[in-house]
Amino acid sequence: MKTFLHASDLGQLDLALQEAAEIKKDRYAFEHLGKHKTALLIFFNNSLRTRLSTQKAARNLGLDVVVLDVNQGAWKLETERGVIMDGDKSEHLLEAIPVMAQYCDLIGVRSFAGLTDRAADYSENVLTQFILHSGRPVFSMESATAHPLQAFADLITIEEHKRQARPKVVLTWAPHPRALPQAVPNSFAEWMRAADVDLVVTHPEGYELDPLFVGDARVEYDQRKAFENADFIYAKNWSCPGVTRPEDYGKVISKDADWTVDSEKMSLTNDAAFMHCLPVRRNVIVTDDVIESPRSLVIPEAANREISATVVMKRLLESL
Amino acid sequence: MKTFLHASDLGQLDLALQEAAEIKKDRYAFEHLGKHKTALLIFFNNSLRTRLSTQKAARNLGLDVVVLDVNQGAWKLETERGVIMDGDKSEHLLEAIPVMAQYCDLIGVRSFAGLTDRAADYSENVLTQFILHSGRPVFSMESATAHPLQAFADLITIEEHKRQARPKVVLTWAPHPRALPQAVPNSFAEWMRAADVDLVVTHPEGYELDPLFVGDARVEYDQRKAFENADFIYAKNWSCPGVTRPEDYGKVISKDADWTVDSEKMSLTNDAAFMHCLPVRRNVIVTDDVIESPRSLVIPEAANREISATVVMKRLLESL
Amino acid sequence: MKTFLHASDLGQLDLALQEAAEIKKDRYAFEHLGKHKTALLIFFNNSLRTRLSTQKAARNLGLDVVVLDVNQGAWKLETERGVIMDGDKSEHLLEAIPVMAQYCDLIGVRSFAGLTDRAADYSENVLTQFILHSGRPVFSMESATAHPLQAFADLITIEEHKRQARPKVVLTWAPHPRALPQAVPNSFAEWMRAADVDLVVTHPEGYELDPLFVGDARVEYDQRKAFENADFIYAKNWSCPGVTRPEDYGKVISKDADWTVDSEKMSLTNDAAFMHCLPVRRNVIVTDDVIESPRSLVIPEAANREISATVVMKRLLESL
Repeated sequence: MKTFLHASDLGQLDLALQEAAEIKKDRYAFEHLGKHKTALLIFFNNSLRTRLSTQKAARNLGLDVVVLDVNQGAWKLETERGVIMDGDKSEHLLEAIPVMAQYCDLIGVRSFAGLTDRAADYSENVLTQFILHSGRPVFSMESATAHPLQAFADLITIEEHKRQARPKVVLTWAPHPRALPQAVPNSFAEWMRAADVDLVVTHPEGYELDPLFVGDARVEYDQRKAFENADFIYAKNWSCPGVTRPEDYGKVISKDADWTVDSEKMSLTNDAAFMHCLPVRRNVIVTDDVIESPRSLVIPEAANREISATVVMKRLLESL
Repeated sequence: MKTFLHASDLGQLDLALQEAAEIKKDRYAFEHLGKHKTALLIFFNNSLRTRLSTQKAARNLGLDVVVLDVNQGAWKLETERGVIMDGDKSEHLLEAIPVMAQYCDLIGVRSFAGLTDRAADYSENVLTQFILHSGRPVFSMESATAHPLQAFADLITIEEHKRQARPKVVLTWAPHPRALPQAVPNSFAEWMRAADVDLVVTHPEGYELDPLFVGDARVEYDQRKAFENADFIYAKNWSCPGVTRPEDYGKVISKDADWTVDSEKMSLTNDAAFMHCLPVRRNVIVTDDVIESPRSLVIPEAANREISATVVMKRLLESL
Repeated sequence: MKTFLHASDLGQLDLALQEAAEIKKDRYAFEHLGKHKTALLIFFNNSLRTRLSTQKAARNLGLDVVVLDVNQGAWKLETERGVIMDGDKSEHLLEAIPVMAQYCDLIGVRSFAGLTDRAADYSENVLTQFILHSGRPVFSMESATAHPLQAFADLITIEEHKRQARPKVVLTWAPHPRALPQAVPNSFAEWMRAADVDLVVTHPEGYELDPLFVGDARVEYDQRKAFENADFIYAKNWSCPGVTRPEDYGKVISKDADWTVDSEKMSLTNDAAFMHCLPVRRNVIVTDDVIESPRSLVIPEAANREISATVVMKRLLESL
């Protein structure tokens, strides 16, 4: 594996899940793999969970870690060839990326969607440039359209907590005051489809996810109906993916508080576990009682971010 | 020891001082203790000495270190339950703290007093939340009311330089243009009371320290009188603790330049050593000649920050 | 070697080049040297290449690394003695530097020229204070007048790619929209003079480099004539060094686009390699086709920054 962006990059998911379980039992079992090797983690956007869990995962593997924040400084990279660079961009990514690659063996990149230009976001422009020009294995630490380390951690969590072979998993939109990327629901849908679960997606009309990720998963516009008999409720807000109305791409087209996940709706489920990738706005996405209930998995999910990142970097190291 | 905030957390101080002396002779003597363990150092406020010395101490113990700065970004944590989080706070500390704890074994927290709400500051709200919700050993890297790593380093320094069994130690207020927290004088008073020294505190009226820290230590409002026969002069500015006049809490109620420590005042002492935790404003807190004199211990004090932090994290590791 | 600022600090350059070649074959060959030792890298200015390559180099040597950014916070250091520090500067470097030195074994400093006061910049005020007051080996990671880690990496690159014993090396000024320091051309000229090459410097009138660095190197004001028969073209912008007109120090006195390096000019050379320290503004300093040509060495040059830093820190460690 030279790149980590999609579920398919991991190959057979059941084997990846086995590997995750082994690593969770002995996190330092593969510490020899990273000896004398360096992971460079590049953040174009803020990060808490990803920053901490990926550093920890790298150290599990014996890797040196260098964290580079490029969001705080004014470092703007030119991306077009042929431009006379006499403006505010002082470096071209055709130099910057190969240079950064000289000092490391693996590269993780966080670069969020701009949410104004659908085609640009869905081309995964920044991540793709790193893949093309670094000559190093590259993994997404949440890029414009996907957050595969989160989705893999979610899958590990579902595997650990499922009570039947093929659980019903509901991905539900929930309201939020600001426009958020589609990366988390995109990857969650993609990974659930790749795994052996019964996936239902529920959201207000207009919030249809991109078919590239959601495929032919069942969509149910009635949230309560979707919740019936569910084993896992995965809540998340996302902005309009612009699938049905391209002009709405990246916009907040609903703040309907009726979509908040509460205990009344949870009572419709099969005693479902509650999941969310965090950070979460309480009493907007989900009520206090649901997120604090014994069926809430938000902390174990976050903890599994260390495990998913360890598996992924292990695979990338094995490819060197 | 699961928490480090007060002198009493260390147990018998003479044993802690012995341990400090051992570690100073061989800083890496306990390097095995931190193997495959991670210290997370969280800074809600700026730091120079603490940032560097605590990282060095962690490495002495073989710990991996992850530094998290939350002061520069706009990460605001909700602390109240029941709030509809549709404003500027995107995460609740009831999630943020347990999540951060997943990726580490020890947590150090720096979070200064706000100096506007005495009750809030003296409740040590942020540190307490980490203690309650992280499930990890937590130590103060200067919190709202205390700076115990500094006070322990000061005690080590006094132990190393004292010329008699029970030295006279004077904590003196000195002027400063801005309002500073009471954390350093609070902890210094507390630790000196716990140790075997003759403590005198001197400051203008209105600057009385909280009895929780200063206890029944002798207070002398005449600085020159306090200096007589002193073995150690510990200078520090602090803002009004609001003990006698709560409405003045956190304010600068005096900038009296007559309280600056100079060589004329030092001549009243028993050839006292001069101490200050740094950073220090020269010719405001203390004159150039005093801080540069052979009796100035400011650099050895700073050096002992590595030692105090090593002892403290060693104790926390032993508690795991 | 206790200080690294000038080519002469390395002693015989041919031996240093041999050491570089050895390290390049086995980067971890001297990993034992840094065990239980810490390098402190202090950045008063932004950095990408230096930040990453120096961290990597430190780890090659088994050093722990602590990176300190002092450019983002508001930490202003007083440098004058006798000042009453009641303004915006909260610490004197006479305290700050010895304190930082307590927690490390080697210190790297990045501190750019201010470009307004020639005498201040050419006194290397900040770096000199670290040398005088830290008691530790100190190396420049680009200081006011010199960038020796870059120049050494450039020399390694020339050594690796030269086709004849004594190549003709041309340092050429090129236009840039903003005022840049003279550190890179200063060090490049100094190091080329110390090495066995035929150096020619070309720039518009008024851009004469300081004799301290450029010595009696040949200066040719006609860029095309300078390029004739060249084996290496090293392009770089710099602001006016103020040698001929002190009042122009630090200013942009030409933006003449006729000085851009393009393929027509490269055709005048002896199939010269193209070099630049990066970051580079394409189609301002150099055209796309030249920087992308097979004769462009900009990426190998950057890669050699790891090697030059490893050799330099190795030498400093050996001096402890």
